[in-house]
Amino acid sequence: MTVVKRYKKEQNESYALGMTLTIELLRYRPESTDRVFMHPDLVRHEAYDLLESLCKANDIPLEVNVRAFNVLSPKENCFVIGLFRKFGTQLATDQSHIVLVNPANAGNLGTIIRSGIGFGMDNLALIRPAVDIFDPKVVRASMGSLFKMRFEYFDDFSSYIRRFGRHNCYPFMLQAGSPLPEVRFKEPFALIFGNEATGLPALFSDMGQSVVIPQTDQIDSLNLPIAVSIALYESAKANLKERA
Amino acid sequence: MTVVKRYKKEQNESYALGMTLTIELLRYRPESTDRVFMHPDLVRHEAYDLLESLCKANDIPLEVNVRAFNVLSPKENCFVIGLFRKFGTQLATDQSHIVLVNPANAGNLGTIIRSGIGFGMDNLALIRPAVDIFDPKVVRASMGSLFKMRFEYFDDFSSYIRRFGRHNCYPFMLQAGSPLPEVRFKEPFALIFGNEATGLPALFSDMGQSVVIPQTDQIDSLNLPIAVSIALYESAKANLKERA
Repeated sequence: MTVVKRYKKEQNESYALGMTLTIELLRYRPESTDRVFMHPDLVRHEAYDLLESLCKANDIPLEVNVRAFNVLSPKENCFVIGLFRKFGTQLATDQSHIVLVNPANAGNLGTIIRSGIGFGMDNLALIRPAVDIFDPKVVRASMGSLFKMRFEYFDDFSSYIRRFGRHNCYPFMLQAGSPLPEVRFKEPFALIFGNEATGLPALFSDMGQSVVIPQTDQIDSLNLPIAVSIALYESAKANLKERA
Repeated sequence: MTVVKRYKKEQNESYALGMTLTIELLRYRPESTDRVFMHPDLVRHEAYDLLESLCKANDIPLEVNVRAFNVLSPKENCFVIGLFRKFGTQLATDQSHIVLVNPANAGNLGTIIRSGIGFGMDNLALIRPAVDIFDPKVVRASMGSLFKMRFEYFDDFSSYIRRFGRHNCYPFMLQAGSPLPEVRFKEPFALIFGNEATGLPALFSDMGQSVVIPQTDQIDSLNLPIAVSIALYESAKANLKERA
């Protein structure tokens, strides 16, 4: 029986917890999937048939393993776990990007990835220090969208800009800037957001056209995934209309 | 020393955990604040001076109480707790509302409240079964915005409609409906959202002009607070512009 350990950032594998996430993993990253664990109490309904056929088609072992659940998901209503090897991806040069500067929270990152995929924006740059994108909490909050996202880490914003100098930068900041509804985004663009607690440093206002989401003075700021998703919605509106 | 217990839905008091939330509580709901607990390790910086003066001005006891922190916030970096009595509020008849049908998650509800206050929408109807708005997790995710929000619970949607029949209903649904960017909201309106897992039942499409947020077919749906916040942003745009 495969020995599993609690997730650590340093290890080369991570986990998709639950049936839905594991099916997304098998669909979009079968080449990275090592094996799938089943809880003995798993009811073998329709989703199970799909899971089994995806495993078979990709030659991925499906193994009953109680211990995996005790270690990885002791309190939860989880009957399937996908074990995958961490993978690398590359940002597309000709497409627009989400750029997160020092994001700290795993749930927030996952939610942003879900929104990104939902608005057709599947390129994500992460500026270090930044939360670990393979943390099972990110996988879960992304609802499996992580397996469809291109992403890269950069040591600092300059390293990002050196590679993507053609991208039009739109730093989102509370201080000054153009109100979001009035901005006409020029592709390819980079929607840039700061850390949950501190936002972007003031010097980012020189990096492009800074943008503010109109809001009352009754809150300090919007929650980060909310701000990013509103920006995605607004910048993707035209594209999504064309596709529809 | 006041005896505190872990939060339970049935009790008449709840807690604001942390300095920021407690200051919001004292500012917006002093009449509901019973007392404020301080951890002995609290560093008495600027925020402390504000806390102390708000307590003094409102005749609210400020007491050192280690046990309160052990019970209510054992793992966290929390040095101030506000104990408050649950309060009731009334929705404004002539203002627009957010209507959440069977919301289940405390963090989501808090985030929605924060966005509501951020977009000048401070009336919230909750259709039962629904998460407890006084859960300290809601207070925290709202960043204290809960203390500025009007809210009421209703046993079912019909009870809401009986009271607010003049409100123009906009149920948000994945099936059909008008795309959000094309909707012109007529005040007073009700932005209606279903449960995190199931969305709104199909019959809601007869309740008004159903609305869909354009998104790719690569995700099942947006996260609930994201969907609500995008709707708030879009429907509040005109108003916020006028105020600015």
